[in-house]
Amino acid sequence: MPRINLDSIEPVNRTGYPTPFNRELAGRWYRRLAPTSGLTDFGVSHVVLKPGSWSSQRHWHEGEDEFLVMLEGEAVLAEDDCEILLKAGDCAAWPKGSTNGHHLRNESERDCAFIVVGGGTSTGGGYSDIDMMFTADGRYIHKDGTPYGNATRP
Amino acid sequence: MPRINLDSIEPVNRTGYPTPFNRELAGRWYRRLAPTSGLTDFGVSHVVLKPGSWSSQRHWHEGEDEFLVMLEGEAVLAEDDCEILLKAGDCAAWPKGSTNGHHLRNESERDCAFIVVGGGTSTGGGYSDIDMMFTADGRYIHKDGTPYGNATRP
Repeated sequence: MPRINLDSIEPVNRTGYPTPFNRELAGRWYRRLAPTSGLTDFGVSHVVLKPGSWSSQRHWHEGEDEFLVMLEGEAVLAEDDCEILLKAGDCAAWPKGSTNGHHLRNESERDCAFIVVGGGTSTGGGYSDIDMMFTADGRYIHKDGTPYGNATRP
Repeated sequence: MPRINLDSIEPVNRTGYPTPFNRELAGRWYRRLAPTSGLTDFGVSHVVLKPGSWSSQRHWHEGEDEFLVMLEGEAVLAEDDCEILLKAGDCAAWPKGSTNGHHLRNESERDCAFIVVGGGTSTGGGYSDIDMMFTADGRYIHKDGTPYGNATRP
């Protein structure tokens, strides 16, 4: 059946971010839904953020659109110019190529959960608040191009 | 801001289905979210089904993956071999090419709402329960290839 049994997919909280940029993500637990359900045209993740956790460092994609819908709880969506609260049912979209970085922070006292969809082609992107970028082949580099050791996106 | 103001997008309930296949869709109200938010890598719709309404005739896509997450209320998901109830938070996925047609029917007494994502390339598809198919260029035809007048997908 096409209904996805979330309980059958082990949530993971790994990230390839080099220290110390991984610290705020310790309470981000995600399940990748596309591999187990046979989808190849776009990626889908079910994400739970524990209180205090971030979805990512504030970032943007050069070649991939992103879409998010909040399922439970609430989180602060932060961008260059503002912060807003996303609640259950709220939707947000980030077209590729915009360099206004975004992320979600759970500043509440309970878990929040959302679905995030990504499509397009991985051609790299950047981070707004830290000296880091990611390459088309998934490596993390400084903004001057030097690598962060062997750190790669999971 | 990337938060999508659903209230600013007029919901529509049009369908290109020829009569009588459009009747069960009279209570399907959808908002296309990608055009207003600049997404091009995949399509996203926010859909409300009034009690008694269907999401579509039971169908499948040759070249497009589909993903759905239920936001509110509940609906019956029907396929060739079974029916199951989808409730808020439930996710479902339909990889392209599977000819096991699907649709949702709101058999409850209150509205349900969901997000549906579609990606890939429109190469046509079919309907499981009626003498109809749709072509890559969006026309509706009988299974013997003869057209249904000028009916096209909206």
